[in-house]
This record gives sequence, structure tokens and C-alpha cells, in this order.
Amino acid sequence: MSARYRIAVIPGDGIGREVVPEGLRCLRRAAETHDFALDVVEFDFASAAYWERHGTMLPGDWQPTLEAFDAIYFGAVGWPAVVPDHVSLWGSLLRFRRVFDQYVNLRPVRLLPGVRGPLAGRAPGDVDFVVVRENTEGEYSSVGGRVFEGTEREIVLQETVMTRHGVDRVLRFAFEYARGREARHLTSATKSNGIAISMPYWDERVEAVGRDYPDVDRDKYHIDALAAHFVLNPDRFDVVVASNLFGDILSDLGPACTGTLGIAPSANINPERRYPSLFEPVHGSAPDIAGRGIANPIGQIWCGAMMLEHLGEPDAAAALLSAVEAVLAGPADALTPDLGGAGTTTQLGTAIAARVGS
Amino acid sequence: MSARYRIAVIPGDGIGREVVPEGLRCLRRAAETHDFALDVVEFDFASAAYWERHGTMLPGDWQPTLEAFDAIYFGAVGWPAVVPDHVSLWGSLLRFRRVFDQYVNLRPVRLLPGVRGPLAGRAPGDVDFVVVRENTEGEYSSVGGRVFEGTEREIVLQETVMTRHGVDRVLRFAFEYARGREARHLTSATKSNGIAISMPYWDERVEAVGRDYPDVDRDKYHIDALAAHFVLNPDRFDVVVASNLFGDILSDLGPACTGTLGIAPSANINPERRYPSLFEPVHGSAPDIAGRGIANPIGQIWCGAMMLEHLGEPDAAAALLSAVEAVLAGPADALTPDLGGAGTTTQLGTAIAARVGS
Ligand SMILES: CC(C)[C@H](C(=O)O)[C@@H](O)C(=O)O
Ligand SMILES: CC(C)[C@H](C(=O)O)[C@@H](O)C(=O)O
Repeated sequence: MSARYRIAVIPGDGIGREVVPEGLRCLRRAAETHDFALDVVEFDFASAAYWERHGTMLPGDWQPTLEAFDAIYFGAVGWPAVVPDHVSLWGSLLRFRRVFDQYVNLRPVRLLPGVRGPLAGRAPGDVDFVVVRENTEGEYSSVGGRVFEGTEREIVLQETVMTRHGVDRVLRFAFEYARGREARHLTSATKSNGIAISMPYWDERVEAVGRDYPDVDRDKYHIDALAAHFVLNPDRFDVVVASNLFGDILSDLGPACTGTLGIAPSANINPERRYPSLFEPVHGSAPDIAGRGIANPIGQIWCGAMMLEHLGEPDAAAALLSAVEAVLAGPADALTPDLGGAGTTTQLGTAIAARVGS
Repeated sequence: MSARYRIAVIPGDGIGREVVPEGLRCLRRAAETHDFALDVVEFDFASAAYWERHGTMLPGDWQPTLEAFDAIYFGAVGWPAVVPDHVSLWGSLLRFRRVFDQYVNLRPVRLLPGVRGPLAGRAPGDVDFVVVRENTEGEYSSVGGRVFEGTEREIVLQETVMTRHGVDRVLRFAFEYARGREARHLTSATKSNGIAISMPYWDERVEAVGRDYPDVDRDKYHIDALAAHFVLNPDRFDVVVASNLFGDILSDLGPACTGTLGIAPSANINPERRYPSLFEPVHGSAPDIAGRGIANPIGQIWCGAMMLEHLGEPDAAAALLSAVEAVLAGPADALTPDLGGAGTTTQLGTAIAARVGS
């Protein structure tokens, strides 16, 4: 009997609504060719349109509703003309990460055929690493406040909150992940020379957890130097583990260096599978090009590959990625304008789907 | 009567001791050709050698001693084999920044002739901007601590501290600085979508202070997107203002993008001139190449130009920079190995000095 996966689909805002159908097209094709089934249910919440009608980002029962699924396939959220970003983000994505304990944010950084990056003299194969970002605590907190508010003496405090539980589990995930790769190398992002309490603690835990992984090589860089090395020596990295903020920065910077910012995927994972994990492209809702049918669907499709990997369909995941690479390596005019082509979202999605498993 | 400036020189550790003499050589030449005098006093503290002898980084009277000077010309500090980084840094550089209220850290990012950067298709003139970093507060604090220490329940808190006073003054400096440039453009680094208390405050103050500068164009980016734009669109920036941590990251990333990380300068400024400002290259003490006489002295020399600018000798500052550019644009073999040459620190310093004011 073949497996069946229940997928909650949330297209969200802007180009999210345009690229999700292409992602689904490719996922369906992967299911057909790899003998599993997808039960897909689409939701209209976590969007500006929902907020306009209901004055809230999510329905009251969003939690049990989404918990019934194996994974969440997410487009993009954010439409500042209608709803302020902090409302839409903290009301959906950032909330999901915490409530569903998606404590790992995984973002691959790869040079791909046919994708021109900003770095001189680098070719596909040179750069292939992954950023493992802590996704629930750290610098992203709403703890703190103001004193002497509105006066010249105003002071604002904002807490970074790290816990043994929270730090250790993401480190352990990163070490395990590195162990599963050929290079078995883990780089830790720190700033213990300037941020005197939380970052030395992070370093300490890397040491402590690392003792269980003597087979994984490790090094660490201060975040300023690490950002510089992403540009200067991106071939040096294998798995990079970082706090919430540092991981956020590095997982935009990495894809920028490989020219893949517009097509990079992101997996928000609850490794224990107690809650559904969420898969979303790194790009946002892109109000500037939304509605024109020219958004690049590759980020959304690549997310689908990460989702299949997580669900336990590695062959189908690999087939999806190969299809993406094959189309990228083919004639440029079939691609969307961001990649120098003249194709539409649907044309590119259809071309990739046609290659899946063929 | 010609001006006289009192300069405290602190070579510090490693290559600091090698490049500072070359910086002084060029400064002396600038003084000769531009009719001012330098009183130079060299100090051995703020170094691992001093720490080894005295068990402390600084003498008891360091503060009045240094306050008697118009500026501090600093090499590099840090020699982890002898003294832990947090001791040497918090015991010297980070302490100077606070005690001497050097609340602005200024770091230029420029493509230079003869310097090969990692970005494809960029040429000198394309990129020329400056990062204005808050240098005394924000994310760099020692406030916070641990509860349930050493147990599974361990929680670590670290405060970010922003004050109206501290934020407004660096913003005002940045706006004034932008006003003095041709493009009159200011970019603010934020992360108000994820860091929910301090960064919205930063944004608010940019708005408020910005009202006094209607002639300065401004925009803002979240730090993740901004880091990406440094790589993808570095020609977009003019003046970039950032908190302590964000400024730290951006002012390493910027020079990395222009290939100038090893030669970039940094000015730690007390704009009111109540305390001496400090000028140091962005590079560190570089234990890996220290003692071999091949360190590149350009960062130290460029620092000298920033110091002269600050002291009120803009012509001499410009002459120093022109000399650097002229030598960089000349035959590569006169340069140090990091720039593809075979020259020594002294040869390169001497070559640049010979060009000053000629
Ligand atoms: C050494 C370190 C504490 C320092 C900083 O982060 O401020 C350095 O990176 C710098 O940029 O001057
Ligand atoms: C939108 C924003 C809050 C979010 C983050 O910083 O986590 C985004 O940048 C990301 O990386 O998913």
C-alpha cells in the first residue's frame, strides 16, 4: 500500500498565490511518478484578504485544524498596504514556528546551473552548504520595554532569551545533519567577543554538545567575520548553525551570494514530528511584481522537494530537484524574467513538472 | 603658525606592531608636505606583552594619560595564545569606546584601483559608501545573566540597551554626514519585523530625527535583506546607519564585498571632541602572518587619513589617500602578497610615503 500525506496549503499573499499552484503541480507529478498520494486542503487564512474580512490573520480553530496535517505548504505572507508587517508576521508565520515548535529552520545555499550569481569565478559544485537556524527563541523575543517613555531620558530594553533546551536541541540537530553529509563539518556563528552573556553561552553549548560528535569537524566564526567569509570563501562551508537572528542574516546572505535569493527554499521543522513542519520559499509576497504572472515558482517547487524529503520520500524529492536543475540548465528563454527569460510562472512550472521522474 | 597635534600611538599586538610604523611614516610625510606638526608618543599598553608583565591590559592612569592627546592611532589588539579575547578587547578597545564616548564608528566601503574584489563586473567608482555604526550601546552590553545555572532548565538572558540619547546622537551624526555628501542618501538597518521592541524603537527615532533632515533621502532595510543587497546592489548605498551589532556585521561585510577587508580603516569618533577619537584598521593582529614582515600597511595608512580628516587637515588626508590609490594602481609586484605582490610591509609603506604630496 502506498503512503498518503495530508498537506495543508496556505498560499497567503501576492506572488504566494501565483507560485503555490505551480509547486502543487510539481508535487502531484512527483506523487504520480513515485507512488504516493497527497491529500491537499487549501486555506485562505494567513493572508491580507482574510485579515480584511475578519480583522484577524487566523480563525479561532487554526491550531487543531493545522495539526491534523502532516505538513504545511506555505506561499508568502505580507501585504503592508493592507496589514502592517508585524501584525501579519507575528499573527501567522512567527506564531506557527513557536506553537508548532518548528525549532529548526533549514536553508540550503547552492550554486545552480544556469543561475548567475554575483560572485566572480564560481561554478556549480563549488558552493553547497546549508544553514541551520534556531527558529523559536534567542534574539526574537517580545520581552522588554521602555522606561521614561517619550522623554529625553527614554531607555529601551530588549531581551535575548536562550535556553539550554532550545540551544541544545538545535545544535544536536545540526551535528546530526552534519554527520549525515560527506564533509561532516559544522561551523558555528557566534559573537562572544562583543555580546558578552548570550553568545559565550552559545559557544559553551557547542562545546558541550560537540563532545557527543567527535566525528564531526567543527569551527566557529564571529558573525562579522562569518558574513565576510560567505562572500570571500563560500566553498569553505558545509553545515552552518546559528541563533535565530544570525541564522536569519546568514540564510539571506548565503543565497544572495549564489544568486538564488529569489528561488531559495526554507523548511521550518519540528524534527520530532509532533507538529506539522512548514515549508516556504525565502522570498516574500513581492508586491512589486504580484499579479503579473511572472513570479519565479522555483523557490516554491524547491520547498516541495524539502517537504517530500521530510515526509520520507527522498527519491521523489531528488526527482523534483533534478527536474529544477535540468530546466535551469536548459534554454534561458523558458525561464522567468528574473533569470533572463521571457516565460511565465505557469510555463516554468509546467516545464519543470514535465521533467519530474522522466 | 602651523597646527600641532598630539597623537597617542598604541601598536598593540601582532601585525599592529608592523603596520603602525608605516602608518607613522606616511603621517610624518603628510605633516612635512602640508605644514603641520605631530607630537607622537608611543605606548606599550593594550597589548598581550603588557598583559604578560602586568596582569592587566592598561595602567591605572590610562585615562588621564590618553585624554591629553588629540587622537589615538591604534594598531591591533588580541593575542589569544596569551590573553583571552574577551579580556584583551573589553580591557582596551571596547573600554576606550565607552569611556571616551566614541559613539560613532565610521567605516568606508570603496572599490579601489588594483584591488580585486569577489564581485563580478564591478569597477572602482561603482561602490563608494560609508557605514555609520553606533559604538557604545545596543546589543553590546554586559547586562543579563543565567538562572537555573548548570541544569537542564538553564535560561540565559542578555539585554539589548538602547537609549534616546544614544540612538538620536548617532542618527544625527549620520544625517549630517549624509547631508555633506553628493547623494544625500541615508539607509537605516533594522529588523523591526522580528526583534519586536528595540528595533521598532530604532525605526521610530529614524523617523523623528529624520524630520530635521528633509533634504536627505532615506530608506530602510531589514538586516537580512540589507546584507543581501550589499552583495547584489552595493552601488545603491551612500550612508548606512546601524546599531552596534548590525553595524559590526555590515562594516565587515561591506569591505569583504569590495575586496578591502584587509585594508579597510575604522574611525571611533567622539564628534564633540571632548575625548580623543581612535583610529584602527578593521583587520586584527593576524597571528598567522605576524612577524614575517609581509602585513599590508594600507589599512593603517588609510586610518591615518581618517585621523587627519578628523583633526581638521582634509588636504593632507586627501593626499594620503591619493598616494594609496596611486600605488595600488601601479605595478602589482610592489604590493604585499595579499594583493598579489612580493613586497614587504616596509617597502609598501615607503612607496606610499614617497607619493604623499608629490
Ligand atoms: C573585536 C570586536 C569586539 C569588535 C567589535 O565587534 O566591535 C570588532 O569586530 C570591531 O568591529 O571593531
Ligand atoms: C519576515 C521575518 C520576520 C522572517 C524572519 O526574520 O524570521 C523572515 O526574514 C525569515 O527569514 O523567515
